[in-house]
Amino acid sequence: MRNILLTIRYDGTDFHGWQRQPGGLRTVQGTIEEALTKLVRSDTLISVEGTGRTDAGVHALGQCATVQLPDGGIPTERLAFALSNMLPDDIEIVSAEERPAGFHARFDAAGKTYVYRLLASDTYDMFRRKYCWQVKPGLSLSAMREAAAFLEGTHDFAAFQSAGGEEKETTVRTIFEIAVEELPEERIDIAVTGDGFLYNMVRILVGTLVETGYGKRDPADMPALLESKDRDRAGQTAPARGLYLKKVYFPGEMGYTVEEA
Amino acid sequence: MRNILLTIRYDGTDFHGWQRQPGGLRTVQGTIEEALTKLVRSDTLISVEGTGRTDAGVHALGQCATVQLPDGGIPTERLAFALSNMLPDDIEIVSAEERPAGFHARFDAAGKTYVYRLLASDTYDMFRRKYCWQVKPGLSLSAMREAAAFLEGTHDFAAFQSAGGEEKETTVRTIFEIAVEELPEERIDIAVTGDGFLYNMVRILVGTLVETGYGKRDPADMPALLESKDRDRAGQTAPARGLYLKKVYFPGEMGYTVEEA
Repeated sequence: MRNILLTIRYDGTDFHGWQRQPGGLRTVQGTIEEALTKLVRSDTLISVEGTGRTDAGVHALGQCATVQLPDGGIPTERLAFALSNMLPDDIEIVSAEERPAGFHARFDAAGKTYVYRLLASDTYDMFRRKYCWQVKPGLSLSAMREAAAFLEGTHDFAAFQSAGGEEKETTVRTIFEIAVEELPEERIDIAVTGDGFLYNMVRILVGTLVETGYGKRDPADMPALLESKDRDRAGQTAPARGLYLKKVYFPGEMGYTVEEA
Repeated sequence: MRNILLTIRYDGTDFHGWQRQPGGLRTVQGTIEEALTKLVRSDTLISVEGTGRTDAGVHALGQCATVQLPDGGIPTERLAFALSNMLPDDIEIVSAEERPAGFHARFDAAGKTYVYRLLASDTYDMFRRKYCWQVKPGLSLSAMREAAAFLEGTHDFAAFQSAGGEEKETTVRTIFEIAVEELPEERIDIAVTGDGFLYNMVRILVGTLVETGYGKRDPADMPALLESKDRDRAGQTAPARGLYLKKVYFPGEMGYTVEEA
């Protein structure tokens, strides 16, 4: 058997999230599994295990997933192209590479970068409505960066977790970096790199930073907010449509260092 | 009765074009007419007459339409807001303004600007797939501009017309300007302003300019192509998803001059 790491891009708009669902709901995982099963002409469904389970409407630029395929058949170096051809135009397999047996996209991931896209404009941009969160202009980026700096590092992020996710052993996570970047055309990207994320953590974090940017919160209140572990004291959950799973880091992979992340 | 000019923005992706269709097909005109009929509580369908009948997948930044409404009821200055609220999020009424009786969005239009959006990149950008035409990089903008200059002015554009449109009395049209503009992030906009357009004229014109940009055509061949009146000698019809009806010009309207257009 070959153990293959897929890197996947998708437009989450028309999916009920990543995770396969019963009842014929259209999901990214389910769609890839069906296409792959057809492609390799398997009698049983080929299972694909993703790094993160993105919610409905959340996009991915670099979701990862592992899959076991028999030797023979389509060579690994042609798999990304062949599988992309079988997939609808809102999923693309960016690459397919062999990894040692036992390597797992989820359990071996050491970190991830999510990017959250804001459009800070008074004018509603219909053509971006599925791909960013449109907010009023006037955000103070320096206040947002000041608040973000308090969130970097290892903290208990219980205040930044929605109910409804999987049970986790601990709510302590490490954020390596939060980069707030101003882009042309009134766009602002918030890139968050960490070793793992609680349910809705990035979206609550973004909602809190946006409120800080409008002056509704003081950046210096962040330590007390973390300390409180109280979800009700954090900001609103930013909408799914602005969130992109950008990159997954694996230890020992070329290009992975905590500094870079 | 009030005669009202609506300016309308829409994302054409999920519509079977502008024009109302039998059989429950989702169209922009049909959707607006139904919403307006509900809004003013009319027993009969309120008819909305647009300037141009955009095809499926074609977008609009400034489509225009006229509608007759009884005096009383919602004031004209609140109509755009009220109607937008009744519409799905892929249609927006940008403005509603009264015009003299007899003024008609289609018959009184003196010109229109269409803009066609290209993305010239080797990397497929899934998130723009419904909003531009993705082509390979390496287009010569100077060749495209040189070819475009031959198309400006008054010509018989029979070579730039698809079968299937309405019968027109003449295939002579005037193009006031074709502007080829390089934008950030590998985008190229082609803005075409003219007094009127044949069926698929802008899309065939763009397809022809793109082939010229790749060196497959000589800019100096444009006069002979016009002269031939032969659709088969022009370029491919660029896909609908890159096309936007940007602006409609009415004589006597503020800001309308042929020079400006």
